[in-house]
Order: sequence, then structure tokens, then C-alpha cells
Amino acid sequence: MMSDPQARLERLTSMLRRRGVILPAFEIHGGVAGLFDFGPIGGRLRRRLNNAWLEHWAAQGDIVEIDSPTITPESVLIASGHVGEFNDHMSECNACGGVFRSDHLVEGFHSNPDVLAPKDLDQLISNNNVNCLTCGAMDWKDAQPMNLMFSTRIGTMKGGRTAYMRPETAQGMFMQFPALYRHFRNRLPFGAVQTGKGYRNEISPRQGMIRLREFNMAELEYFIDPEVESSHDFSKWVSSRFNFVPDPEFGEPLEMSPGEASTQNIIRHPTVAWFMARTWDFLVSVGIDPAKIRFRQHEGTEMAHYASDCWDAEIHGSYGWIECVGIAHRGCYDLAAHESATGDNNLRAWRPYDEPKIVDKTVLSGKGAVIGPSFRDQASAVNEALELLIDMPSKFPFELSLGNGDKVTIESEMVEEKRIQSTEHGEWFLPHVVEPAFGIDRILWHILDHAYLESEKGGEAYTVLRLSPSIAPIDVVILPLMEKDELAEMAHDIHRRICSTKNLASYYDGSGSIGRRYARADEVGVPWAVTIDHESLQNGSVTIRRRDDGKQVRIQSDDLVDTLTIGPSANLF
Amino acid sequence: MMSDPQARLERLTSMLRRRGVILPAFEIHGGVAGLFDFGPIGGRLRRRLNNAWLEHWAAQGDIVEIDSPTITPESVLIASGHVGEFNDHMSECNACGGVFRSDHLVEGFHSNPDVLAPKDLDQLISNNNVNCLTCGAMDWKDAQPMNLMFSTRIGTMKGGRTAYMRPETAQGMFMQFPALYRHFRNRLPFGAVQTGKGYRNEISPRQGMIRLREFNMAELEYFIDPEVESSHDFSKWVSSRFNFVPDPEFGEPLEMSPGEASTQNIIRHPTVAWFMARTWDFLVSVGIDPAKIRFRQHEGTEMAHYASDCWDAEIHGSYGWIECVGIAHRGCYDLAAHESATGDNNLRAWRPYDEPKIVDKTVLSGKGAVIGPSFRDQASAVNEALELLIDMPSKFPFELSLGNGDKVTIESEMVEEKRIQSTEHGEWFLPHVVEPAFGIDRILWHILDHAYLESEKGGEAYTVLRLSPSIAPIDVVILPLMEKDELAEMAHDIHRRICSTKNLASYYDGSGSIGRRYARADEVGVPWAVTIDHESLQNGSVTIRRRDDGKQVRIQSDDLVDTLTIGPSANLF
Repeated sequence: MMSDPQARLERLTSMLRRRGVILPAFEIHGGVAGLFDFGPIGGRLRRRLNNAWLEHWAAQGDIVEIDSPTITPESVLIASGHVGEFNDHMSECNACGGVFRSDHLVEGFHSNPDVLAPKDLDQLISNNNVNCLTCGAMDWKDAQPMNLMFSTRIGTMKGGRTAYMRPETAQGMFMQFPALYRHFRNRLPFGAVQTGKGYRNEISPRQGMIRLREFNMAELEYFIDPEVESSHDFSKWVSSRFNFVPDPEFGEPLEMSPGEASTQNIIRHPTVAWFMARTWDFLVSVGIDPAKIRFRQHEGTEMAHYASDCWDAEIHGSYGWIECVGIAHRGCYDLAAHESATGDNNLRAWRPYDEPKIVDKTVLSGKGAVIGPSFRDQASAVNEALELLIDMPSKFPFELSLGNGDKVTIESEMVEEKRIQSTEHGEWFLPHVVEPAFGIDRILWHILDHAYLESEKGGEAYTVLRLSPSIAPIDVVILPLMEKDELAEMAHDIHRRICSTKNLASYYDGSGSIGRRYARADEVGVPWAVTIDHESLQNGSVTIRRRDDGKQVRIQSDDLVDTLTIGPSANLF
Repeated sequence: MMSDPQARLERLTSMLRRRGVILPAFEIHGGVAGLFDFGPIGGRLRRRLNNAWLEHWAAQGDIVEIDSPTITPESVLIASGHVGEFNDHMSECNACGGVFRSDHLVEGFHSNPDVLAPKDLDQLISNNNVNCLTCGAMDWKDAQPMNLMFSTRIGTMKGGRTAYMRPETAQGMFMQFPALYRHFRNRLPFGAVQTGKGYRNEISPRQGMIRLREFNMAELEYFIDPEVESSHDFSKWVSSRFNFVPDPEFGEPLEMSPGEASTQNIIRHPTVAWFMARTWDFLVSVGIDPAKIRFRQHEGTEMAHYASDCWDAEIHGSYGWIECVGIAHRGCYDLAAHESATGDNNLRAWRPYDEPKIVDKTVLSGKGAVIGPSFRDQASAVNEALELLIDMPSKFPFELSLGNGDKVTIESEMVEEKRIQSTEHGEWFLPHVVEPAFGIDRILWHILDHAYLESEKGGEAYTVLRLSPSIAPIDVVILPLMEKDELAEMAHDIHRRICSTKNLASYYDGSGSIGRRYARADEVGVPWAVTIDHESLQNGSVTIRRRDDGKQVRIQSDDLVDTLTIGPSANLF
């Protein structure tokens, strides 16, 4: 029984729920599929994982944290392509009205059904006589796209406008490109990170923490100049063997270092390879088993509408191989899309030429006699914007964005075309973006899955969660041998002292046998247990027990905070 | 000009935008009122403030962090009262269709218009001849309540259900009461905190960061037994004078310590007084000027539908006195509401009696001959649930919740009433809740407002942001004297070393005069500036400058991390 993976998954899920790590949300109101709570133990685990992620990237020195709203006006998501493209297909049963994801209906008949077009889905459903999972009928409407965004309205019914809960944090970061460019004093490359909620209105959520309707995302947008050759130092990973699964069109699965994979052009862009290597470091540092990580390249048909190359970091666990990180080369897709939708030219970076160039060009010049009376106080702003215009308008009238964000309409009689010779010192261009996007919940799930160790003790089942001390939600449990006045008082004092220390959390557990209390702590991965006994009252020493081998030593209670913060001294164990 | 508060506010707002602290969101798409971005500098400021808040409460030792979804099914918010009561009133102009908040239209004609009933609002509008702000007409529809929640739908069109973006994080924490109660091994008092987004679909957002449609909340729910006398140690604040503004019905504004205010029953519950004192500590620790904090008690008409006493911590700044924290005694309102809506009896705590009591009581007992055939495998679960029933049903048939969450219908012929004598060892009761709820954005705004110091240097305007080093978003700027190879290389090395240190962030600024670069750093509140010059290359020493007095000393670059982490050594300055 212990080796049946499905039974193990059920025991793990049940433990996570019972101990307040991850629980179905709104359960007393009947619950909602795809929404989960992080409980009294899961809450801090999530926070620490999130913070570890932020620190990992901040250490690079050219990456800053930003935060943008989750409510996103429709125009942003039309420009980004989400209103048109962020769909799953669903099939409706004519007999009972049941609605299912079309790709789920044809699982087993195709290796990757979520890339199929609606007519191929219908064909597979029909060829394989797929029955309705509810009523058993075989009478389907044609597969229809269903947009996966949660929609809402900003403002009152009357004056309101459509908006969506963001499907990714990335768009908010593209919006901030002008602020980022200023912050980094106009020098590429640089990056921004954002962590927070993302939303996806799944048709039928399943697989626990894998398919959520509201999830914790952590994304990084790294802006680069496509004409500058990226150089990255891969020497750190020279003897690491990563598992790569390239697009079958390009080759077979293989093991090699990320530097080699970049040199051999298996990974097409060195900055993508760099973020794959740094992603691997992060995953391993928070407790993912390196043998259970692989990088799989998206096939052409599978690639998102914005990506020119994409690798998933997949992690193996109770649900098989699951995509937990996507590392995509988005090119200039997003910045170009927002520029084109808004006419705003603040999404570009400046590339100075080595030598100034003298170029012939056509410019629009405002006719003073028309511009002045037409635009009054704005006249000089209009002339300025005309001078800065990079592309000639294809037709008149056209909309011109002024420096202050206002827009004006320019008629053909307001301007004249002039051929001029100008000395150009550089050019404005759209930066390219490499984006590592992390699903924090999926990573957290796999950390728990890999850490969960079942064994036996004295004939009974015994489980330990071998969480890395860097993210364990409780650093130490404080156990008075008995809950008598003085022992409990000393235990409470120690508990409060540890809780008052930045980045440390302790849990006071006063009742039950010491063995039972150790077991409760081991079950949720507390790395250290401290017992206060009668000797403690006499000389201030306490017993400290290490989770992973159960070894115990006595130390002075005054040394506890240091031991927990910087780790036990060399000879202690 | 320097002393005109409106002009100062505009300069501050413009600096925050220019430097990437707080910016209007989605600006290139035209923006949305009431939605803001935290930029490359604001992002980390927000994170540090949030973390400081979490650490402040975690230090208490009986408070844990949890996290629940922002999407909330309708039934939860019907039970909590938000679907019915979370409204503002709006007035619509018959002439132009413009929609305004009714209480905004009558500002100046009433001291607290947001507590007025719709007919009183209409009366004031009519008596004072209030014109439409858009078209100038004076032809209003009756004031109508508008619910302030953003609504959405979970799932597909057909099978979907109504949900809302949460108006507060609190309901998610009440949902988790059973998990919290288990976590704390069934012992009150204990608390949970949650930080995250809250949503309020304002009719007409204004006042910058004060009225947002999406905001950062930080709430604490502290569960207590109403029959246990709370004891709190107020000795820490014995010589602190807080400003209290009680409900005018009860008294005049006064200054006193929180302990006194509790003893004199100005604050009705000692646990409310305790959280007010701890709130004051927090606000002062993150940089709020203590002279600009006051505690104002809600008047009866103003109190939220759930509260039995409520005090706001108000902070004074550019917008006058603004509510930034609400500390409410919610009684058992919420837990009772969810119990009554769901019939779930897991929201109670157990209170043992000092002595067992023998009581006569009426119980329902299932008739075996009917229960068995009616419920088959569930029969024993039904009998068990009948035994546990606390209140007799007022009528038949009624719905009975089983231990596994299922519900069954009980007809009168299935049961018989029995009078029994039973020995009771305790009772199940609904805990009371004290809730300090923080608006992180409003606090952050006031931190900036209080820290922003305008002066002159060499005849030019000069501004410094005197942020507390505990929350400053950049700990240090690294300035090579010139951007020559070796100086820049050493500066980059130091920059990377600091960024790799947990909880430290540095900013590399290579170009411009040193004076200009100091000014840029002072403007966004960087506490320390480090300059690398030719001497640095020779002996490894650097100049470190303190923001608040401009004083500079040389230290070894190897000592920098310690100096920044634990503060400068005693004799350094």
C-alpha cells in the first residue's frame, strides 16, 4: 500500500488539509473548484517561497520589483492579444447541456490535444465516439472557444467600462517600461519582477494545486537590445547536466550543461539559456529534487501567440511531468502591440550610433498659419510632436500623440512634407524581452511532494516533511517537558523571544507526549525542536533536536537565536 | 510658494511619479481612475512596509499568517452582509445622465454626509439647490444605493455562478476558523493575519492614494472568549499620550495613555485598547509622525453593520485627517452569520466548565425503524448529527448537516423528542473577534508625506525623503567618482555584493556630478551613499555619506555590508 502513488497522493493531500497547509477554500459554503486557501502553516510557507524568489533575482543587481493592479482595462488586453487568443475550447452536450473542455474529451486519442484547432477536436470526438461524461449521450455541439479571463466592470453600470482580472502579471510590467527605462538611466539590459495573483477561469479545474482559477504568479521581464550580443558567464554550471527535451523537429532529448546547450544553439538565445540556468538554481535551492527537473522546448504549434522560443521547466511529481516555469523569448511582441494600439512612443529605447549618420528623410512640418489658430496653447506641443514623428502617417487625418499624453487630429492641410538632410546620432528601437514566468503554487506543490517522506516508527506510519530550512514555515517548536508553571513559563519566554526575531517563527506546543509532539512537528517539516526540562530551570540549557536525523544535543537557551539564524556551530552535532 | 500646501502636494506627487515610486496605472492606455502602479522604487517600499507589518504581529507569538482567494462566491458575501450593505448612494442627473456620489454632492451642508439615509441626501440636495457638476442642471433622480463590489462569474456562461472580488480579506479568515482552531490546539485567544488586495468599485475615485479601486489591505482577526476577562500589559505606554476623539455622545477629545483610556472605559474593551496601542507602535516604527496620529471613535450611525465598537487610527497629512486603520470589535457577528447561513457548526470553540453540570434537556432521537430505511449507509451519521444538535428545530421538516458536510432533510415522523438528564463538561460557543484592519496604501502615502522635506541648497530647491532605514526601498547608492574602467569595476563589484545580501538593495549610479547624484538619492530617501575614488583602488576604503546630515567618513569596503545591515559602529560618525 505504501508504494501505491495514488494512495500516497491522497495521504499527502489529507495531511496538508488537516495540518492547515493547503485547504479547499470557502469549504463551509460548499467550496469552489480551483480555489485554495493557504492555512496557518501554508501561509508562511508561501510567503517565504515568494521572498526567496524575489531575493534570488534581486541579487543580480539589475532587476527591480514593481507592482501593478490585477484589474486590467479591456484595451490593454485587446492590445496584448488576450481578448482574442486566451481561450480553451469547450464542447457542449446537446442532450444534457453539460459543458466540457474539448481537449479533455479526447485525451488518449492525441498526444497533445490542447494545441488542436476546433475542427480537429470535433473530428477526434466524433471518430472516437466520445460520450458525454454526465449523461452518456453522443450528441455534441461544435467545439467553441471560451475566453479564460474573469471579466468585470469598472465604475457604475452607466458610465462603466469592461475590465478583466489579469491573466498574467507581465502586461503591468510592459506598461511600466517608461518608468523602468528612466530608473535605469536609459541603459539596457535591465529587468523587473512582479509577484501576485493571476486569474484563469478554467472550465473544469482539476489536479489540486496544478490547475487553479486564482494562482500565485512570479514573473520577470528582462529587456535587451536585440543588436547587442548577450554575454553570460556559464562557468558555474560547467559540470551540471540539465535534462533537455527539444522540439522533436530539432532533436532528441539529451543531457548537457546550459553553456553547451547555448553554444550548440539547442537554446537559441544565450539570455534564455542564462535564465534557464538561474531558474534551475532557484528550484534546487528551495528543495526541488534536481533529478526531477527537465527543460522542454515548446513545439511550433504549442507556442503562445507572442513567443519566438519557449522552454518550460517541468517538474516530476505525483501528477507526472508538470510545467512549472515558462522561459519565453517574447521578442518585441508586447511593446510593439501596445505601441501600435496606443500610438504612444515611450516604449522605445535609444541606441546611439558609433558614428553620426547623415540621412535624407521626409518630415512633416506644421503650417504656422493653420497650426496656431487650430491648436492655440497646444500649438508648440503639436509642432514638437510633428518633428519627433518617426513614421510618416499612411493617411490623413491621423491622430498625433503629444508629449503630455494628449492626442490631437492632424488634417492634411495643417502640414507640409519636407525633404531634409539630418544628422542622426542614434535611433529609437523596441527592446526585446526574455520572460521567465513562474507558477508559485505548482512549485510549492512539488516542494511538498518531493519533501514528503513516509516511513514507519514502532510499527506505526510516520511521516516527515524534509523542507529546506530556508523556506520551512516554522523554524522551531518549543516543547516544555510538562506544562507545569515554571517549565511552561520558560518555554513561553523562549517562544516569544524567537518570534520577536526577524525572519524566525516558532510554535509553542505544550501538551501530549514528547514523542507525539516531535511527530507533529516532523509531519509539517519543522527543522528544529527545543525541549525545556528541569535541568533547563537550573542551568538555562535546553535540548535541541534536528529533524532530519533526530539527533539531540544540549545548548544554552541564550544561544538559540544564533543557532537558528546562522545555523548550528560546527561541532555541535 | 514653498508653504502653500496644495503646491507642495503637487510637487510631491510629481516627484513620486517621475522617480517611479507611485504612478497612475495603464497610463499609455489612458489610465483608470483609482488604479495605481508601484514603480521600480515604490515596489520595494511597499514590500518592506508589508513585511514590517507582518513581522510586527508575528512577534506576538499567537498570530499566524494565512492567505485566501480574492475571488469570493456570492453566498459568502450574502452571509457577511456585503451583498446587502456594502453600498454608496449615487444621484443621477436627469438632464445629462451624469452620476455622482450623493454624499459628495452635499459636502459642506453636513458634517458627515456618508452616514445619511437616501431621503436625507435627497432633501439636502434639494434644499441647497445643488447643481449637476457636468451640465449645471438641477434635476436629480432619487439617490440610489450602488453596491461597491466588483462582480464576476466563475465558470462557463451556462454553468457559472456569481462571485465578487473581495471587499476585505477578513471573510477569508473567518472561513479558516476551523483550521486556526486546530492549529492552536483548541485554545483561545489566537489571531490570524492576511495581507493582499482588496477591491471597492468607487463611483468617483479621488484624492490620489486615499480612494483606490484596488488597494493593499492588511488585516488581523483576533479571536477571544467573551467570558474570559482579557488582561493586557499597558506598562510600556504608561507615559505615552495618545490623542483620543471619542464619540461626541460620550465625551470631548482628550490625551491620555491607552492603559488609562481602557481603565476609564473610554475604550470599552481592553483587547481593543491593546491593539490600538500596538497599532500606534507600528505606525511610529515605520515613520509616521506621532504628533499626527489620533484615534477617533465611530459614532453610532457611522458604525459598520458588524461592529459593536470601532476606533479609527487617523493620520494627518496633505488631505487632512484620514482614516488609515480601523480597530473594530466585531463581536461574534461574522461567525454567527456564517453559521446561520450554512448550518455548519465548526465555527465554535469549546469552553470547559469548572465543574461538570447536570442539566435537563430536550433532545431529538432518531426512530430506528424510519431512519434506517430512509438513509441507509448514512443512517448512523444522521443519528450522530441528531445527538449533537444544540438547538431544537423550530419547525419540520428541517435541514440537518452531517459530520461529512452533507445535508439531509428530517421529517417530524423520523424523530421523537426526549427529555434527558445529561452531564455537561463544557459548552460550544461563538468566539468574539477584535479586528485591526490597515490600509497599507494610505499608510504608505502618509509615510511619504511626512518624510518629504523641502529646502534649498545653493539657491535651488532641494528635497530629501527622510524614510526610516527599516523601510527605505534602496539601502545605499554606489557612486564611482568617474565611470572609468577600474573605478566602475570596483563600484559594480560592491553593488553586486550588496545586492546579493539578504534584505539589502543597492543602486548603481555612474554618471553626473557627485552632487547631482547625492541629490537624486536624497530625493527618494536612500539612507546611505558610497563613493568609490582613486584612493579606493589603492587601499580598499570608500566614502560613506549619511543622508540625514550629509556627513561623510571613510570605511573599508569590506565593512560595508555589516555597516548597512546592523548600522554604523558607535564611533564612526
